[in-house]
Amino acid sequence: MIVDYSDPLIVQEVCPRDGLQIEPTWVETADKITLIDQLSLAGFSRIEAGSFVSPKAIPALRDGEQVFQGIRRRGGVIYVALIPNLKGARRAVASGADELNLVMSASQTHNLANMRMRCEASLAAFGEVVSFASEYPVGLNGSIATTFGCPFEGRIDEDRVLQLVDAYLELGMDGITLADTTGMANPRQVRRLVNRVLQRVLVSDLTLHFHNTRGLGLCNVLAAYEAGARRFDAALGGLGGCPFAPGASGNICTEDLVNLCEEVGIPTGIDLPHLLQMSRQLPTLLGHELPGQVAKAGRNSDLHPPPAYIATL
Amino acid sequence: MIVDYSDPLIVQEVCPRDGLQIEPTWVETADKITLIDQLSLAGFSRIEAGSFVSPKAIPALRDGEQVFQGIRRRGGVIYVALIPNLKGARRAVASGADELNLVMSASQTHNLANMRMRCEASLAAFGEVVSFASEYPVGLNGSIATTFGCPFEGRIDEDRVLQLVDAYLELGMDGITLADTTGMANPRQVRRLVNRVLQRVLVSDLTLHFHNTRGLGLCNVLAAYEAGARRFDAALGGLGGCPFAPGASGNICTEDLVNLCEEVGIPTGIDLPHLLQMSRQLPTLLGHELPGQVAKAGRNSDLHPPPAYIATL
Repeated sequence: MIVDYSDPLIVQEVCPRDGLQIEPTWVETADKITLIDQLSLAGFSRIEAGSFVSPKAIPALRDGEQVFQGIRRRGGVIYVALIPNLKGARRAVASGADELNLVMSASQTHNLANMRMRCEASLAAFGEVVSFASEYPVGLNGSIATTFGCPFEGRIDEDRVLQLVDAYLELGMDGITLADTTGMANPRQVRRLVNRVLQRVLVSDLTLHFHNTRGLGLCNVLAAYEAGARRFDAALGGLGGCPFAPGASGNICTEDLVNLCEEVGIPTGIDLPHLLQMSRQLPTLLGHELPGQVAKAGRNSDLHPPPAYIATL
Repeated sequence: MIVDYSDPLIVQEVCPRDGLQIEPTWVETADKITLIDQLSLAGFSRIEAGSFVSPKAIPALRDGEQVFQGIRRRGGVIYVALIPNLKGARRAVASGADELNLVMSASQTHNLANMRMRCEASLAAFGEVVSFASEYPVGLNGSIATTFGCPFEGRIDEDRVLQLVDAYLELGMDGITLADTTGMANPRQVRRLVNRVLQRVLVSDLTLHFHNTRGLGLCNVLAAYEAGARRFDAALGGLGGCPFAPGASGNICTEDLVNLCEEVGIPTGIDLPHLLQMSRQLPTLLGHELPGQVAKAGRNSDLHPPPAYIATL
């Protein structure tokens, strides 16, 4: 089996949103802005920079307006905002977001727990968002949480996911994200579902969002890449997590993903040394260690000096 | 691309050897024996149960004799001992080891650092071991450390690895292990090298030994499996590590590997719930957390109760 690794892989950095949203430590607005500005300089073409949800629901990201208005926009970078409804969409557009990311779950139970409404109500609310957004030069991405499994319901029927993909496309979404919200995906399932979804969605419009909860995040990226997917969410340091799986690790780690790409030869356009430098500052900013591994172990090319005694052998 | 996952994967559990060898906490002989006996019951067909090296070099495993003589042997299970030389081989055979695992590095510098001799001297010493072992009903496995990269020298030429494979086969080794000692392998390299080695070595005689230092351990397992390899080393809890990469994680984690296999449908014959129960006891035994993730997050099938408020929506 020969795998072709010459096609570029696009990393959408989600640390400022999915990474920070459950952090118990308040990160100052200025620090968030610095983080995003540094990410812009590191070579990302897409950054999920914040969310416009109720400040009661996610207090860690209550400063979305100030963050979006404070960042230094780099040409060619798309700054994405997560939004749950029309109110969030209005705030995001007013703050200058380039793209709105709407999220609902494939699992009815998870949508009730997370969005406090049934899936049908989420879709109806998204219709309003699409109408509103059509008057602005803003992109629309529809994310399907719990695509690969639900912590409450377990397995999710693949046809259910495809129905939601179709519903999103009918609504007029530009892009689709298949999200493995709590790290339940496996490479076999990923390969099969990506194959099916790419019969409906252009490669350039499909994002895969994996968590590394059970250690399979990068395996799932490779399986999706081999099946033709090219765009992936990842978070600096592997930040993020799931309130339903305490102790489990978070999003796939951006620098570990970029390191994998470099080692196998997949172009990403991202400056890995810059990224590692940034990741190594996160424990100071957040007050705890992060799951990312390359930041701790170094790259393969970071050689170690041999022990002195070998000169005497 | 269709991948066939129907062929069984054999896990050789190396926690009692590669896992425990750098633990600073002394693990009592009785606890080691209990650990190995529990592993035997969990369904492993191969367990690396200890090593017979200088007690000064690796004090944590100085009780190899008592461990091998104290375990309750289960029929069909092969109990392997790591040995560095003829002295170790004599001790291992006298203690009842079923198989001797000999290790040298593909990297000259790493062999000097680790074995305190040049590769040529290691091979010569192994010749003595083979002669000695031929009089006993004991298996012989030759491991090639730093196959996929050396922390001192960097990249290792693939032809160099193949020469060592040939040298091992000429010596009369029954099995060959390609070891990624400090987690420098990538899936592309693994696929290519496994393809080449399987032109020389039977599938049933080849083992891959990966560390998860840079988060690629399970990706490398899948790449090797897809290239035809079927036998893999792993350590309960992901125990182990590398003195040259502090903070980096250790061997690939057995229960995370078995979970991956179960999710994609690869048979292993190993009792995952039993394994998770064992892994969750390791922090108490060793006094620190372990990198394994499924032990923390649970299996996909361990569903969570939905929040109570959804009943009122």
